[in-house]
Amino acid sequence: MPAKDIKNHTIKQLETLAEEIRKDIVSNVKNCGGHLSSNLGAVELTLALHKVFDFPKDKLIFDVGHQSYTHKLLTGRDLSRLRTKGGASGFPDPEESEYDAFAAGHSGTSVALGIGYCAARDLRGGTEKVVCLIGDASLGNGAALESIFSSEKKPKNFVVVLNDNGMSIDKNDSAFFKAISKATAKKRYRKVNTVLSRTFKETSAFGKYLRKIKYSVKGWLNKNYFFERCGFKYVGPVNGHDLSELCAVLENIRGIDEPVLLHAVTQKGRGYAAAEEDPSRYHGVSKDFEDSDNTFSAALGNILLERAQKDTRLLAVTAAMTDGVGLASFAEKYPDRVFDAGICESFAVAMAAGMAKGGMRPVVCLYSTFLQRAYDQIVEEVCLSSLPVLFCVDRAGLVGADGKTHQGLFDVSLLRGIPNLSVYAPKDAAEFADIFDYALSKNAPAAIRYPNGVAPALGARTQISDETLWEVLEEGEDVAVLASGARAVERALRARELVFPLRPAVINCRTIKPLDEKMLASLAGKRLIAFEEGYAEGGFGSAAAEFFAERNMPVSLKIMGAENTFVPHARAQEQAEALRLSAQDLAAEIKKQFSEMQEK
Amino acid sequence: MPAKDIKNHTIKQLETLAEEIRKDIVSNVKNCGGHLSSNLGAVELTLALHKVFDFPKDKLIFDVGHQSYTHKLLTGRDLSRLRTKGGASGFPDPEESEYDAFAAGHSGTSVALGIGYCAARDLRGGTEKVVCLIGDASLGNGAALESIFSSEKKPKNFVVVLNDNGMSIDKNDSAFFKAISKATAKKRYRKVNTVLSRTFKETSAFGKYLRKIKYSVKGWLNKNYFFERCGFKYVGPVNGHDLSELCAVLENIRGIDEPVLLHAVTQKGRGYAAAEEDPSRYHGVSKDFEDSDNTFSAALGNILLERAQKDTRLLAVTAAMTDGVGLASFAEKYPDRVFDAGICESFAVAMAAGMAKGGMRPVVCLYSTFLQRAYDQIVEEVCLSSLPVLFCVDRAGLVGADGKTHQGLFDVSLLRGIPNLSVYAPKDAAEFADIFDYALSKNAPAAIRYPNGVAPALGARTQISDETLWEVLEEGEDVAVLASGARAVERALRARELVFPLRPAVINCRTIKPLDEKMLASLAGKRLIAFEEGYAEGGFGSAAAEFFAERNMPVSLKIMGAENTFVPHARAQEQAEALRLSAQDLAAEIKKQFSEMQEK
Repeated sequence: MPAKDIKNHTIKQLETLAEEIRKDIVSNVKNCGGHLSSNLGAVELTLALHKVFDFPKDKLIFDVGHQSYTHKLLTGRDLSRLRTKGGASGFPDPEESEYDAFAAGHSGTSVALGIGYCAARDLRGGTEKVVCLIGDASLGNGAALESIFSSEKKPKNFVVVLNDNGMSIDKNDSAFFKAISKATAKKRYRKVNTVLSRTFKETSAFGKYLRKIKYSVKGWLNKNYFFERCGFKYVGPVNGHDLSELCAVLENIRGIDEPVLLHAVTQKGRGYAAAEEDPSRYHGVSKDFEDSDNTFSAALGNILLERAQKDTRLLAVTAAMTDGVGLASFAEKYPDRVFDAGICESFAVAMAAGMAKGGMRPVVCLYSTFLQRAYDQIVEEVCLSSLPVLFCVDRAGLVGADGKTHQGLFDVSLLRGIPNLSVYAPKDAAEFADIFDYALSKNAPAAIRYPNGVAPALGARTQISDETLWEVLEEGEDVAVLASGARAVERALRARELVFPLRPAVINCRTIKPLDEKMLASLAGKRLIAFEEGYAEGGFGSAAAEFFAERNMPVSLKIMGAENTFVPHARAQEQAEALRLSAQDLAAEIKKQFSEMQEK
Repeated sequence: MPAKDIKNHTIKQLETLAEEIRKDIVSNVKNCGGHLSSNLGAVELTLALHKVFDFPKDKLIFDVGHQSYTHKLLTGRDLSRLRTKGGASGFPDPEESEYDAFAAGHSGTSVALGIGYCAARDLRGGTEKVVCLIGDASLGNGAALESIFSSEKKPKNFVVVLNDNGMSIDKNDSAFFKAISKATAKKRYRKVNTVLSRTFKETSAFGKYLRKIKYSVKGWLNKNYFFERCGFKYVGPVNGHDLSELCAVLENIRGIDEPVLLHAVTQKGRGYAAAEEDPSRYHGVSKDFEDSDNTFSAALGNILLERAQKDTRLLAVTAAMTDGVGLASFAEKYPDRVFDAGICESFAVAMAAGMAKGGMRPVVCLYSTFLQRAYDQIVEEVCLSSLPVLFCVDRAGLVGADGKTHQGLFDVSLLRGIPNLSVYAPKDAAEFADIFDYALSKNAPAAIRYPNGVAPALGARTQISDETLWEVLEEGEDVAVLASGARAVERALRARELVFPLRPAVINCRTIKPLDEKMLASLAGKRLIAFEEGYAEGGFGSAAAEFFAERNMPVSLKIMGAENTFVPHARAQEQAEALRLSAQDLAAEIKKQFSEMQEK
């Protein structure tokens, strides 16, 4: 279904197509997991954009990109293997299609990308139009606000479509959103809809049309004040599900060269009853949702619930991911002790620093890939003053279906370079609880990283303490595996079974910073294999290499970490195999080390 | 001069004190370097805050902190050795004084810190007031916008003082700023001043007072719309140099418990004619400003000027640091090709990604310490799609007088973990130009890091190419120094002279990623010393250690990098000595290596 095909579609045909696309999205997301509510809300908007603009000559820039499925379908991509190995990515990706102007995955950058692209276009005298599609929740992110509020000389032939579903991922508590959407927030979708219909029916020629919408809406909403001050012609609000209205307005916008912000009101989950009623729940749908009770995220929720009653200093901070990081039950029981910053990681971390200074013990719960958005605040606000903020770094390591833009492969190298910050990686959920308590007891900044999926239950051998930072899980000879993190430990134990009767030692290196220097030094005579799910560059193995280099101790140390590439969507296990980080790969390396040993 | 002393000062006495403080600031900044304009603009504001609030019980949170000198003087700190070793820091630091609630140095986080502190205070039932002091330029930063626009339920007993000098560091081209300061931007300082005097003279009782200011100003400015929507009572604008007005208004604000935004209009550089006229130039004043022609920053400006005429794709992007990064003359000659994003590093980097996609070659010029604010955009927007953005990373390594909050010790570990990104460190200005061309020719993301201060001229031996990534500066025996970066190379050459007649090899490791693998492998038999000005954790030496570990090659590799602590203000050379990274320290290590060699 190439994009150009819909150019001659009538509105009626587009409406029929919208229904088909909805069915396609629902069935594919049911099969493969993915983003449901946001995609269902953007069907008509995307159709109208494709009908009116000439992509890929014109550029369509998605913010976050979790609303790009309709666009993918219209540009010839098959969603039947969405987010699975070799299938379509869940996010825009220029490597997948020339219709995807930019890769996306994190919030708030589309407008900056658009402004930059337009600047380049204008310098070389290009004529293509640039359209950004951004949701109301993304607009509250600092990167988005920076770009919206940048120089009021916004580029020509530049359209920002604000997809305002009044929702964001969880409920939206942003004052900015409320300010710009006062009317929609108050009157909800249906009423706005009615008002809009009235407004639009009066209009005809575009000059009059635009002005009418603008001025009739002006006093009523005051919304345009923001955007006009920022250099945009404000158009809207329009009904984001009315293809006739959308196409007419976009056609007119296309005809002028001024920067325009089109405010479209949509309904998240539109057309799928369950998602309409509970769009938060259907924001991201996991294929194997049944695992959710055994994840590290669930463990975090339990840990907090257990400790919150005794320790009234414990607070949880999250960035629009209360459910995702496992805080749902904690938030229900202690609503005053959960702080959802919206998609504002910088704000979340700086706020936590303030809380720590104020005597509380904030636990900042973020996915690894989003934590990197607040790196500067971790350094400057938290660690420089050594404030006791605990970072729970979820989705650390290979993340599976979300792919390239969401991998948790950077955090070890990011975090272990920061003074005053300790970094931990528990092997299982029970150890997570131990480390949580241990980290809190240190009265200093700390980060605990753990992967998504089912948390193994490996059975605690020794409890972490100052004397037992690492633990020997399996004694052995000649070769020792230094395993960092739950998946690495679990695979190391399996690899040991695979190489039987060879007997490598298996060490649970549950502290990444500090290292267990005593144990590491004691292992210097063995052939060491550092094994981790993260980039080798600056990672855990690198820390071990530094340890020996600092002491000028020549050792045999093999680092097995992720190759330094962006890792596409597939199951996490498949990604590990592609990176040669499976139990089998480790077993092969162990065998190689033993055989080289014998050759000597 | 402890803070409590001014509690009983009359306005007259405070005015006299203000004059003394101004003189003190000017003379100390002349001697020691530091921030002049911003501090001169905040004298009366700070005095009034100290007169009215009870610091340190109440909390005063500085944004950025380059306006904290008056506060330092009022709280017993001597500025005669400002920013020098053992003297007062140029920024707030809780380790220096209990009056400094938080460390500061980077923009935009004060409001988030305040919100977090208030949340903690309210949970434990505290009664202290929290005051944030933030400039108009900082307010445009994404982190600040996130916090201002966060939940409209702002904490009680929370005051944000907006120090609006209509300037920012360079000229402020932010639409946000213009929106909130339309009147001040239009009418400039004096006129506002007159209007304000009229407004304030009519008032008496506070209820009436506040309301009068509010409503008389409302229609006139529309400014309060923003802040009231965001949950603040808007008060202002007030004349930020009129102590009588300031004290009266603050006294009243202190009496209510609602969240208040006080809008104070000030004049940057106030009271020092030269700074009043050219506040940009006097924003940050360097003690040894005479070196500016020989810096890497100046070299960058020349490189761009030379290449821009031939290569019309070259653009420069900066974040409120056009002068600081050396772009002044380039901006003068090519005003359309310099993009100043304001203090919005995320926006700057994402915009550059858009420019690269649009066919241009953006050169993003940032200080190392500010680059880390855009880490996520470097990963997701630039490197994931391998867009040809060139990062010129200024002030990399030890920065000297700015101290803890501004050290450029993180960038190597941050950058070398990012796929598709090459990382370079030229030994001198001539090599900077070579590497600039080489990096551009690669058509992929790249970063070039270099320190502040005088760039050495060491004389190019070999030009960088695919075959000559590194160069041997001095041949030698048994011991080889792998020097990364200009300062390291220069010190390594000096160290070699110091250890004569010993003859260590000196290698200029001008590529950090990729490494010169062939040369590195060829050196495996020697005793290696990796020498760099950056944290050892994940740094250049770590990369070398990984190289050998990946290949399972046991070598003797000593890493000499910065100890993992926050390094306080002093001269860069003193900081290097404190970290044992001087030429003398390297010479001692070389001798040690040679003598251990002989012992064998």
